[in-house]
Amino acid sequence: MLICAKRFYNALEIISMFSFAKQMMLRKFGVFKGFTPLRSGEGELKQASELLKILEDKALGGIKVERKKSENVVWHAGKVKKEDRERFLGQKGVILWFTGLSGSGKSTIAHELEERLLKMGKLSYVLDGDNIRHGLNGDLGFSPEDREENIRRIGEVAKLFADLGIITMTAFISPYQKDRQRVRELVKDGEFIEIYVKCPIDELKNRDPKGMYEKAIKGEIKNFTGISAPYEEPENPELILNTDSESIDESVEKVIEYLRNKDII
Amino acid sequence: MLICAKRFYNALEIISMFSFAKQMMLRKFGVFKGFTPLRSGEGELKQASELLKILEDKALGGIKVERKKSENVVWHAGKVKKEDRERFLGQKGVILWFTGLSGSGKSTIAHELEERLLKMGKLSYVLDGDNIRHGLNGDLGFSPEDREENIRRIGEVAKLFADLGIITMTAFISPYQKDRQRVRELVKDGEFIEIYVKCPIDELKNRDPKGMYEKAIKGEIKNFTGISAPYEEPENPELILNTDSESIDESVEKVIEYLRNKDII
Repeated sequence: MLICAKRFYNALEIISMFSFAKQMMLRKFGVFKGFTPLRSGEGELKQASELLKILEDKALGGIKVERKKSENVVWHAGKVKKEDRERFLGQKGVILWFTGLSGSGKSTIAHELEERLLKMGKLSYVLDGDNIRHGLNGDLGFSPEDREENIRRIGEVAKLFADLGIITMTAFISPYQKDRQRVRELVKDGEFIEIYVKCPIDELKNRDPKGMYEKAIKGEIKNFTGISAPYEEPENPELILNTDSESIDESVEKVIEYLRNKDII
Repeated sequence: MLICAKRFYNALEIISMFSFAKQMMLRKFGVFKGFTPLRSGEGELKQASELLKILEDKALGGIKVERKKSENVVWHAGKVKKEDRERFLGQKGVILWFTGLSGSGKSTIAHELEERLLKMGKLSYVLDGDNIRHGLNGDLGFSPEDREENIRRIGEVAKLFADLGIITMTAFISPYQKDRQRVRELVKDGEFIEIYVKCPIDELKNRDPKGMYEKAIKGEIKNFTGISAPYEEPENPELILNTDSESIDESVEKVIEYLRNKDII
């Protein structure tokens, strides 16, 4: 019998552990005194840790408690580190960098994914025009220098969020390979996940729910990516989502599968 | 008997609920069939929610399940909101804005608090010179305009972190009342908590572990706050930490007490 130490136990796991420990204690000592009350206020981490200790101390020959390396309960001395927060959250802090033309579905997919992840008990956050352009980057326009500075700051903020242990999503057109590459180099290998949200421009021109492409074609909007300003396709993106042929759910599922395969969630 | 619905249950709570439900079911039905296995992979939230439903459905007259408003399990339609993340984390997203002279103890207290909070199962993050000056604000110098822009950006990033549900700490001298006030106005009432880390300048000159004050007095460092540049004391800070008379632990405890009193943790 192996019990693996995790940070949080779900209801069934704790009930199973409890039942098993009770049986074993009855068998071994002929008596079951129950667990000593666990101290409150120090969080579930402590609780789970103490429950395990009780199982180890009191319960039973025949149980070996194995602590999974990625989920163990040891604290570093000194400052709290990224790894500590990742253990606490039960996930890795990474940047999911969505890039693609206007209207391709970056923000929609990111927000859908955010909701799915939260329901799975994973914490994520979407940086997009809504919370960046009016705040941190409210002082920037759309000149080439300002666009570059825009992406630089978003990259730096995304790095901080990833350092916090968050699955950080950015949903910006980010048309230049060079700017995306610079963000990639800010973090460790594997922490920058470039997701190309790909949709043929003719399809986008047809959809055009906000009439943006029409205005851009007429010249009413200048420097519009894909019409009057270039979009440089990612050279080696970690993922491509083909939003002309996939449903939103399918795209979201592809990202979740990727995160699972890479042990990020 | 009241069972309050929370997001996470600690071991003892689940064991108690389980034992109680078992007793009640035995009493009521004369038989105990156990719980149906809970689905995995959807996170503890779902698990806790299902456990409660089972308790409500199967168990018992005599139990009323009350869902605490602040901890209930309902998801908003559409985008994930700050409140959803706060519920998930079991804490409020706020900004603890530490301000005070160089060497007063802002960063030390913040990092100590960060560690204490994580041990309590609360997620926090410290924005300070280490992760801001070399990254996001690496393009800024120490001119008056750049100092103002420095604090503006830190405020905007802290707002994003608070929106994520994090207890966000900033540890910067931030000498000007006007700049701090501007950050206060970025967020809702109660979300900006100004903490004045107060230590008499003579004490700081005496300590001076890095020899910074000596250099500033000799004129080797220009625009040094408290010597050759002004420090505007907070007018109505939420908290004052007197680091000449309090230990670090005492200061940390004062902040924790404040957070508890305000139901932030």
